[in-house]
This record gives sequence, C-alpha cells and structure tokens, in this order.
Amino acid sequence: MPPTDPAAPTDPAALTAALIRCASVTPAEGGALVLLEDLLSQAGFACTRVDRNGTPNLFARWGARGANRSFGFNGHTDVVPVGDLAAWTHDPFGAETEGDWLYGRGATDMKSGVAAFAAAAIDFVRETPPDGAVILAITGDEEGDATDGTVALLDWMAGQGERMTHCLVGEPTCPDTMGQMMKIGRRGSMTAWFTAQGVQGHSAYPHRAKNPMRALTTLLSRLPDTLDAGTAHFDASTLQITTIDCGNPANNVIPAKGSATVNIRFNDSHTGAALADWLRAEAAKVEAETGVTIATRIQISGESFVTPPGELSALIARAVQAETGVTPELSTTGGTSDARFVKNHCPVVEFGLVGRTMHQVDERVSMTQIHQLKSIYSRILKDYFA
Amino acid sequence: MPPTDPAAPTDPAALTAALIRCASVTPAEGGALVLLEDLLSQAGFACTRVDRNGTPNLFARWGARGANRSFGFNGHTDVVPVGDLAAWTHDPFGAETEGDWLYGRGATDMKSGVAAFAAAAIDFVRETPPDGAVILAITGDEEGDATDGTVALLDWMAGQGERMTHCLVGEPTCPDTMGQMMKIGRRGSMTAWFTAQGVQGHSAYPHRAKNPMRALTTLLSRLPDTLDAGTAHFDASTLQITTIDCGNPANNVIPAKGSATVNIRFNDSHTGAALADWLRAEAAKVEAETGVTIATRIQISGESFVTPPGELSALIARAVQAETGVTPELSTTGGTSDARFVKNHCPVVEFGLVGRTMHQVDERVSMTQIHQLKSIYSRILKDYFA
Ligand SMILES: [Zn+2]
Ligand SMILES: [Zn+2]
Repeated sequence: MPPTDPAAPTDPAALTAALIRCASVTPAEGGALVLLEDLLSQAGFACTRVDRNGTPNLFARWGARGANRSFGFNGHTDVVPVGDLAAWTHDPFGAETEGDWLYGRGATDMKSGVAAFAAAAIDFVRETPPDGAVILAITGDEEGDATDGTVALLDWMAGQGERMTHCLVGEPTCPDTMGQMMKIGRRGSMTAWFTAQGVQGHSAYPHRAKNPMRALTTLLSRLPDTLDAGTAHFDASTLQITTIDCGNPANNVIPAKGSATVNIRFNDSHTGAALADWLRAEAAKVEAETGVTIATRIQISGESFVTPPGELSALIARAVQAETGVTPELSTTGGTSDARFVKNHCPVVEFGLVGRTMHQVDERVSMTQIHQLKSIYSRILKDYFA
Repeated sequence: MPPTDPAAPTDPAALTAALIRCASVTPAEGGALVLLEDLLSQAGFACTRVDRNGTPNLFARWGARGANRSFGFNGHTDVVPVGDLAAWTHDPFGAETEGDWLYGRGATDMKSGVAAFAAAAIDFVRETPPDGAVILAITGDEEGDATDGTVALLDWMAGQGERMTHCLVGEPTCPDTMGQMMKIGRRGSMTAWFTAQGVQGHSAYPHRAKNPMRALTTLLSRLPDTLDAGTAHFDASTLQITTIDCGNPANNVIPAKGSATVNIRFNDSHTGAALADWLRAEAAKVEAETGVTIATRIQISGESFVTPPGELSALIARAVQAETGVTPELSTTGGTSDARFVKNHCPVVEFGLVGRTMHQVDERVSMTQIHQLKSIYSRILKDYFA
C-alpha cells in the first residue's frame, strides 16, 4: 500500500488488492501479515506476531489489555492453492480489476474480509476512540490443518490475559446476495471408515464364504441419510456415504475385503462421541449377524456449536439491515471455520460477503461489496461501544 | 505313449501322463488331440478333427453313424495356465509321480477323465463290440470362452447326422472321496453390472447432490442373498455382491458415480430373462425414488438345466456302487461345464474323480483313482449295451 494521509479513511478495496499481491498460499506468510502489522502499528494498535511451529499469526489490540468490553475480529490471510493456473483469465496474485471486480486468489476468502475489518477498526479508533478494546486476531493457517493458527492465537491470549468479550469472524457467509446470511454456529462433522474382512470364496458356493460387501450394504442400509428433524437453530443432521470400494474384477469370486466411508454433519441433538458409539454398535450387530469382521475408524472433525441469538447477532443484524436493507438469516449451515475454536473463548458470529467464487479459478470480489462490508463492520463497532 | 500290444488293456494312468506332457494350455492343442486321434484311429474309431475358428476339437466314433443306441463321452484336453510356476514342486508338464500321485496341470481337470473314458472305450469295443455306437467328443477349449469347443462339435454332429443317445461328461465331480457325487444338472449363472450416475456435491449440502452410493446400497439391500427355498433337484438360488466401487478419496465430497456387480446362481424356478426383468425393475424403482440414474448391464452365462433322475443316472450309480461301494449323490451344485451345451443334444450326466487340486499349484491325481474311473466307465458301457 502506498503511504496515505493518516487522517483519510482507509480504503478496504486498496488494502484487499495489496493483500492479494502477497502470495500467502498456506503455510506461506507471503508478506500479508507483515503488511497488516505495519498498518495497524501506525494506527496505534499493539501488535504481536504469535507464530507457532512455523505458522504465522498476528495479534493486534487497540485499547487496554483485558478491557471489560473488547470487540474482536478473527480472520485469515492464507489462501488455497491457485489450482489450474492456465484456466485463470487474470494473474491470481495480480489483483487485476475489471469493472467492479477485483480478481485474485483470496479475493473473497478472505483477504477482503480482513481488509474490511482492519480498515473499519483503524478508522473507528481514530475517529471515535472507544471505552474498551478492539482486537484483531489474524491467522496465516485456516485453510491448512489449522492446528497452530487461531488455536495458537487463543492459547497465547489466554496466557497473556488478553480477551475478547465478543468476536466476529469475517469469512464470506452470504450465498447469493450481500447481507443475506450470518452464521451463529455450525453443525459438527465426523467421518467413519469401515473396513470389512470376510472370507473369500466362489460365487457358486456362498455358504463357504463370508461376503464383506453384503455386510457393508447391510450396515449402510441401517444408517439413514437423515438422523433427526432438526433443532431450534439447526437443520437436520445428515449422513452421506462418500465411497464404497472393493476392486474385485472377478464376478465368480466373493471378495475377502471391502471398505466404506460415511460423513456425518450433526446438530446439537448429538455429540460426536454418541454418534461414534452408535456407529460402532451398528457395526458390531452386523459382525454378529454375518461373521464378517468390521474395523471402524472414526474421526470427529468438530462438535456442533451455536451462539444462541442474542446481543451479538442482533447487533450484526441491525448493522446489516441499516447498510444493505437486507435482514440476515441466522444460519448454522456450511463447512467448518475457525469459529469452532473462537466459540470456546467468547460468543462468536460469522458475517462476511458473498463467497461464490471462493476456492475457484478466477476468484473475484465486488469492490462495492468490500466497501459495504467495511461500512457494516464500522457500524457494528460504533453500535457496540455506543 | 509307447506302442503297446494291441490286445493288452489300455493303461489310463500312462495315457494321462502322456496327455499331461502335451502343454495344451487353452487355446493350444499341444499335441493332446493328435495323440488321442492316433490311439483311437488304431483302435478302429472313425476320427474327425472338428476345428472351428482355430479351436481344436476331436470327434471319434466306433460303430455306425446315427445308431439307435449310441453312448457318448464328452471332455476337454485343454488346461488352465500354470500360475505361479515357482510354487510348483513338480514340472507342471512333466507328469512326475510320487507314490500314488501323478503330478501335472490337467492331472484332475481333466486329462485323467479323458484318458479313463478313452481307455475304457478302446478296450470295450475290442473285447465286446456293441450293437450300437460309442462316441468321444473331445474339445480343446472348455477352460476358455468355449464358443468354438463342445458347441462346435455338437453343431458339426447335427449337420452330419451324428448323434449320441446319452452322454457322460468326465469332469471331476467328487468333492472328497471317489464315487461320492455325480452331477445331473447345474444352476444357471448370470451377472448384473449396475452403474449409478448421481450429482456430485459437498457432504455438508446433501440436498444439492444425488448420492449414487446410497442409490446402490438401497438397491442392493432389496436384493436378497437367497431367492427361493430350492426345488426338487436344486439348492436355493443365491445372489452375491461381488464388488462395489467408487474411488472417492474426499470425505467432504458426495461422489458423482459408483458401480456394483452381483452374480446370481439360479435354479429351475427361474429363468435368466425373468431375473433380468426383476433386477431392471428394482433398479428402476430406486431411480424413481432417488433421481440417480442406474444403467444395468446383464450377462446370462447359462440357464439352469437338469437331466431328471432316470436311466442314465441309475446306470452310473450302479457302476459307481459296484466299483467303489459308494452310492453317489445326484447333485446340481458347482460351477459351469460343457454339460450346459450337451443337454440340448441328449440326456447328460457328469461323473469323474475327486477334483480337489484342479486349477491349483501342484495339481495331482491318484493313479489308483484313474484306474477306478476307467473301471466305472467300462462297467457303464457294458451295462448300457447289455
Ligand atoms: Zn476462509
Ligand atoms: Zn474341466
């Protein structure tokens, strides 16, 4: 970013473009956090790099440590790989514009979100210094394993007595139109891998064999696609068979071994542990019935969580309504995000722009939307500290 | 075979050994049919090579063409490949002996059977020339596609006015002990390949996808392992899932496509066509319910058939009982054989020795059993023409 008049409003589109030019494909820092640290330090934020195991993270606070009222923003500067470079019509790290569109990897996910909340925070503390603190917790590893990203920031904050009383994660949350949706929680996610070991045999003599594929279809037919009818804040829990494999080319042979994988997205009427128990019990029943051995491996990627509608969601809804005229839906749909870590620290809601091209070729963002997003974040801060 | 005294009994073990030394792995003739043609011609059989599309076959008849009473033997000289040569303890084409065992590829399946019926036929027509004909229909392609093997012999015979009034197929039929089992028919066999085409999607948004693996498990769960309770001469019809495949490594992705294969062995309460209709109807129901497209390809390898217990099975049972003291079971179990073609020509039963090592490494045959088998076949001929 070129040096600017310190009294002029911070341009979130220009900041997004500057961040896109930093090739911060996970786990590379790419200059993105250095750029933000410079900018925030100049604006009076106390900045600390909270790197852990080589993962770069930036903590920035304006105001007093441990303030009674401390609004936090969380986001990430790392981006997914470019993918099919030949298919891009613009340099993925060029921040080229075409009309209202700003192109580049991370344009929507989520350099624009980081730029919007950084710009809003800088201008807010300069124009109306609040009685409290504004915190920016920005990681360089959300798209990767995320083991030393936001978690490392939160661990470090706990150790330092740093705290946010409420937090907004700036991920893109709107499916189609600006302001349409905020996310107040997320379903849990888990995967189960079943490996069935039977006894090989000839198709003409099935009584001498134990068919692992029949054991798997029996098991899978007892695992419904929908596990409940949904709850107050959640859609129904769903189960999907993501693969079944055997690889037996001989149709006169009953195979010895096969495998199947299911992925479950579950709401707050379940826990990962209870679902794991259920899956293992169903597998054990089929084992007892068929004599086929079924090994079950389970990975719980995250439990469901929700910040029930209240002060934070109402604050965000008011700001979105005022700036866009749209009333945002309070949703718990979609894939995972760092909100699953932040919820252990304080109430957290996610709100950002339209994420249609995230992770795709020709990822791009509307510059008008970046400015809208900054306006929404600015209004949230003003309202929060009013 | 060394030249022998034309009046001496033909040694079926020596003939088996001579045939084993012919490396007649399908489709190679390997000298086996040439050897048999020489031997049978010398014994007064009218021999014709009935090769079709490069597949070697031998027809031999003693007595008049189209005789009112004409007993036929059917068998094959081709053998399956050696497999893991290093694992053999004897040269697979060496016909080496160890005690009572004669080793080699084809020792049980079924050079011993061909040798036993050739030896029995040669000695029988010399010692007690019958009022009728003895026919040997020997193919060099039973283990392969079998499209130009026994079928070609039967086609040629029909064209020439050659006919068998009854036929015995000399395949190994006894599971454990000599004389234990003859086969009077066989279940039908068919295979169905289902290819399910759905709509790919994210595991968190199943309503936007159509899961082909769920469609397949739904379909397969409606196809029972057992289709009936068996009939007078048949075990129950059985269905086995031989493979299910998808190959999707991403557990957050609902795959677009998957496939499954089932193999059915069916008795005389079904036809291949009726089962095919049933499978297609079940697939269509699942298509209608899920929106997943299921392409169904069906191959009927053979319909079920049976030669009901009668003159032929009684004849064989008497001979087996007399020579071994064992009463053979009349079975319709097991894999396919050329009896499925012969049954269109005349009543057919299969009877041979213990086939335990067929298709395996160190395939071997008891020389005592070869002699027993020749004795049984000799007694059948004498009884038949008595
Ligand atoms: Zn993101
Ligand atoms: Zn055979």
